Amino acid sequence: MALIVAKFGGTSVADVERIERAAAKVVREVKAGNKVCVVVSAMSGVTNQLVGYCGEINKLHDTREYDVVVSSGEQITSGLMAMALQKQGISARSWLGWQIPFKTTDQHGRARITDVDAELLLERLNDGEVCVVPGFQGVTEAGRISTLGRGGSDTSAVALAAALGAERCDIYTDVDGVYTTDPRVVPQARKLKTISFEEMMELASLGAKVLQTRSVEIAMKKGVALQVLSSFEDHIGSDLPGTLVVNEEKIMEEELVSGIAFSRDEAKVTILRVPDVPGVASKVFSPLAKAAINIDMIVQNVAADGKTTDITFTIARADLERAIKTLEDAPDLEYEKLITADDVAKVSVVGIGMKSHSGVAEKMFATLAAKGINIQVISTSEIKISILVEEDYVELAVRALHAAYGLESGAA
Amino acid sequence: MALIVAKFGGTSVADVERIERAAAKVVREVKAGNKVCVVVSAMSGVTNQLVGYCGEINKLHDTREYDVVVSSGEQITSGLMAMALQKQGISARSWLGWQIPFKTTDQHGRARITDVDAELLLERLNDGEVCVVPGFQGVTEAGRISTLGRGGSDTSAVALAAALGAERCDIYTDVDGVYTTDPRVVPQARKLKTISFEEMMELASLGAKVLQTRSVEIAMKKGVALQVLSSFEDHIGSDLPGTLVVNEEKIMEEELVSGIAFSRDEAKVTILRVPDVPGVASKVFSPLAKAAINIDMIVQNVAADGKTTDITFTIARADLERAIKTLEDAPDLEYEKLITADDVAKVSVVGIGMKSHSGVAEKMFATLAAKGINIQVISTSEIKISILVEEDYVELAVRALHAAYGLESGAA
Repeated sequence: MALIVAKFGGTSVADVERIERAAAKVVREVKAGNKVCVVVSAMSGVTNQLVGYCGEINKLHDTREYDVVVSSGEQITSGLMAMALQKQGISARSWLGWQIPFKTTDQHGRARITDVDAELLLERLNDGEVCVVPGFQGVTEAGRISTLGRGGSDTSAVALAAALGAERCDIYTDVDGVYTTDPRVVPQARKLKTISFEEMMELASLGAKVLQTRSVEIAMKKGVALQVLSSFEDHIGSDLPGTLVVNEEKIMEEELVSGIAFSRDEAKVTILRVPDVPGVASKVFSPLAKAAINIDMIVQNVAADGKTTDITFTIARADLERAIKTLEDAPDLEYEKLITADDVAKVSVVGIGMKSHSGVAEKMFATLAAKGINIQVISTSEIKISILVEEDYVELAVRALHAAYGLESGAA
Repeated sequence: MALIVAKFGGTSVADVERIERAAAKVVREVKAGNKVCVVVSAMSGVTNQLVGYCGEINKLHDTREYDVVVSSGEQITSGLMAMALQKQGISARSWLGWQIPFKTTDQHGRARITDVDAELLLERLNDGEVCVVPGFQGVTEAGRISTLGRGGSDTSAVALAAALGAERCDIYTDVDGVYTTDPRVVPQARKLKTISFEEMMELASLGAKVLQTRSVEIAMKKGVALQVLSSFEDHIGSDLPGTLVVNEEKIMEEELVSGIAFSRDEAKVTILRVPDVPGVASKVFSPLAKAAINIDMIVQNVAADGKTTDITFTIARADLERAIKTLEDAPDLEYEKLITADDVAKVSVVGIGMKSHSGVAEKMFATLAAKGINIQVISTSEIKISILVEEDYVELAVRALHAAYGLESGAA
């Protein structure tokens, strides 16, 4: 008998039939003797429609009113989910953010959770009732509705799991777990039984799109065990059918490399021959920060003449035009030339084992060299090595690396 | 400088463009120096969609969860309306039912208003802010969302107007006022400048579909002046462009007959030769009441033999099949024969002047006789005479009566 938070994403509650299928999964947990708190997203497409209305009225709308509008999507699903559970014979009720209360800061549209009052919910859960909570929404000190920003329902679920002291937070989604890489690129990709929080964070921020980065961050901090699993498959006879995201210490067989991530959403900017004096990096990056352009990899080399330097960095492809304009307009920034490329992709090797094993980087470089793939930029962290390659080579690179590190299904 | 409640129905806020047009009407009131509290319905179609989801999941759903789901429609519009007003330079904010609080009983799905806390709203209105309130929704003592039943936004607006002590409650809709009859049937129909609450109630319940009957009832009880006007026309240079619904005493030129209403949604049931003993009416009508079938007109005649009686009554056409089955299955009800007709229509002459003038009924009967129209059933109230005719004659009857009582535009 465990207390479980079960979160269903937008595609898992896209219509009434899917809501009923999701409810059936909850019913199975309840019948197995577990207490369940359900967190729901808006039906897929609904949030985009509501955000669209707000943008149509005013691009610079009042974010407090934006939250009133967009939080409705999850409110609708929570009522429908409670009904669906009741129909299947389970006692259930919806708890809106202001009813719990699920308290947040007043940064509307991107509020941060301050406190989740678990008392009432725990009382009901102990009475055998399923609590259905709309994700993404909370309430401010002033009693107004707030939202946590896109993808915030994962974060709601993890915060609730922490507040309730849940044994596990199950994230039901449209994939059945975390894979060694994208199975559409490498058919031999293998589903991981476990992965560490640190690795999951790297994969999430690298575009694996399975979990919100922030939710993994909170789960790690609060020690909430996360499971990613499919809402479209029946998991009969398996206790943990998905991928479990846990603390490093809980991972029995540590693997050197857990997965290969990649992202095509990249652009590269090189500024040639910037004067090599203190403060030059700030002159480059502070205008970009002001323009809200996120910088990913940064590489700086001293140029041959000893007086100037070349700076290369990567950004999201959608930001490239704005970045060029920002740099061209930047005051006091001297340089010879701007070189940009939007046909680049990032490939990353992620593995907690890297911390204690050497040779991972060498194998990466050797593998790519053997395939004749040129590495444009290299960036590393404790548990990750990322490289930038020409976009045309991304699939070849991922397949070669997946094989080189022995990640295929057969190899496990 | 007045305090006005302005209510916009579903077609008046059907999309972003219409919300902006509705907001422009509010802005004009504010610029004229008035304080305005806006009440909004859901965008047209939204409530039906949400009700549909609930019905799909469970026809016997938990009405508390139904209210969580369907109240979202008005929540969305209230946020969008606040944004639209802000964009036009007006200070505005949305106030959800639970934030006001707008208190109701816990009869979810058809809750009745118990108390509207006007204090906070009045404070903001006096500060020059426009308050935007979602119609149809409230909050129960237990802190759960409630709804007032279909068409409840009119009722919300009137209750708010009463609580705020508003000078007037403007109901913006897709017609520009209350007419002497349906202009699609009688092109010479004339828009009324004023009408009494009593007349409006008769017209509303007779299918004029301009205002919720219950909202007129509350307005009469609380003495709230109602104006029905179009949200699709510009009312420049006219203080009261619509129809004002007020107390009888405030109507300057009382007219004998204010309007001709009609309804095609009728069916007639005659039970022949029921034993004429005490309690027989109860044997007929109590099974129908239990089946939730509303009875409209009732006529009972003693039959020629002195021992039996014939009972005729009218119901909504949609209920006819169920009514027949209910009567056939009724215990202890003896009769010779059931005769039913679903090709009947009701025509009503409404006018507060009837109270003090005679001859209104005679004129009605004479007019219809002159056109050869047979009257099947007659029913009267203090300010109304209703008759049942064959459906094919309804338009002829309405046109003849409209002319007979001198209601045409030219005649005023």
